[in-house]
Amino acid sequence: MKQKGQLIIMSGFSGAGKGTITRALLDTYQDEYALSISATTRAPREGEQEGVHYFFLAKDAFEQMISEGAFLEYAQYVGNYYGTPKKYVEDQLELGKNVILEIEIQGALQVKKMMPEALLLFITPPSAKELEARLRGRGTETEEVIASRMARAIQEAEGCEVYDYLVINDNLEQCISHIHQIIQSEKSKMNLNIDLINQIRKELNEMKGE
Amino acid sequence: MKQKGQLIIMSGFSGAGKGTITRALLDTYQDEYALSISATTRAPREGEQEGVHYFFLAKDAFEQMISEGAFLEYAQYVGNYYGTPKKYVEDQLELGKNVILEIEIQGALQVKKMMPEALLLFITPPSAKELEARLRGRGTETEEVIASRMARAIQEAEGCEVYDYLVINDNLEQCISHIHQIIQSEKSKMNLNIDLINQIRKELNEMKGE
Repeated sequence: MKQKGQLIIMSGFSGAGKGTITRALLDTYQDEYALSISATTRAPREGEQEGVHYFFLAKDAFEQMISEGAFLEYAQYVGNYYGTPKKYVEDQLELGKNVILEIEIQGALQVKKMMPEALLLFITPPSAKELEARLRGRGTETEEVIASRMARAIQEAEGCEVYDYLVINDNLEQCISHIHQIIQSEKSKMNLNIDLINQIRKELNEMKGE
Repeated sequence: MKQKGQLIIMSGFSGAGKGTITRALLDTYQDEYALSISATTRAPREGEQEGVHYFFLAKDAFEQMISEGAFLEYAQYVGNYYGTPKKYVEDQLELGKNVILEIEIQGALQVKKMMPEALLLFITPPSAKELEARLRGRGTETEEVIASRMARAIQEAEGCEVYDYLVINDNLEQCISHIHQIIQSEKSKMNLNIDLINQIRKELNEMKGE
C-alpha cells in the first residue's frame, strides 16, 4: 500500500530560514517532496513561467475558482489575488509526494479547515537575540526598519499555538533532517494506518477460521 | 531549558518484538531511556532483585498505594497485584529520560487518563501472515496452541485505534531507529514548547521597547 503524501505547511518568523529549508528538503529528498504552486492574478514578471513560479490567472477565472471552492486558501494583496489551487496539491499527494506550502498563519488556518490532516510547522531561530541579529542583517538597515521588522516578528508569532510543531532552526542541516524525521514519523500515525490494522485483523480472523 | 522525558507506552501483538525493541532502545541510546519498574505483591523468584526487576510489596502496602492514587495503572492477575508506581516514572521523566512502559491496552488506557501526554505505540509485524509465522514459532506447537495464540492476537488488537502510532516491525534495526525518530519528533510538538515561544515573544517585546 503506497501511502498518500503529507501536506506540510511551513510558517515562521521572517529570517527563520523557511525558504532555505524548503529548497533543501526538495533537493535532498527529491522524489519525496513537491512544492505547492500558487495562483495569482498579478502579471508575470520577467523570467516567471506559468506552472513553475505561478499559475497566472485572469481575475474572472480566479473568482470563479473561489466560488467553486477550488482554493485551499487565498487572499488579496495590493489589489491582486494569491491562492493555493487545491487540485495541484491533491494530485501531488496522491502520487505520494509530501507537498510543502510556505504560507502565513491566516492561510494556514484556512488550509487546516479544509484539510485537517495538514501538518503545521512553525520555524523559529533558537532565541529572540538570534532573530534580532538576523533581522539586523548586514548592519546597513536603519533602526526604524529594524524596529518595524521586530514588530512584524511579534505579529508573525501571534496564534502560533495552533501549529503542530515548533521547529528550531539553529543548525540548518540538523533542522532539515529533523523536519524530515517529523514527516516520516507522522506517516506512522494510527489514524493514517487504520487500513493496515484492519487488514491484519481480517486476515487473522480468516486464519483462525481455517 | 532541558526538556522533560517522554512517557512511552509500548504495546502490540505477542511476537511483534516489543521486548527486543525495548532492550535495543535502552542499549543504543543509554542516557536517553529508562525502563519503568513494576511493583508486585507476588514473591520474588530466584535471582529477582528489589528495584531492578520489581518493587516487591506486601498486599497492604500495595492497597494503601492504590488508595493514594500512587499507581499509573494496576491490575490483579492470578491473585497478585501488578502496577506501575507513578513516582519512579515521574522522577525519571524529570531527569529528562524517556520512560518505556511495556503494558497491554487496558493498562495503557489507565495511564493515558492520568498522563494524557503519554505516547502510545502499537507494534505490529508487517502482515498477519508474518505474525502467524512468528506465532507458529519453531513448528513444534500443536494446532490448538497456535489457534489460541491467534485468538489472543485478535484480542490484542482490540481498541488499538486509541494508540498514537502504529509501528511496523519488519526490520528490527530500522524499527528501533524509527521509534527513536518518533520520540525525537514528539519533543518538537508545539504544546511542549509553549514556554520557548513565550520567551521569544517576551524578548522581542523588550527589544522593540528599547
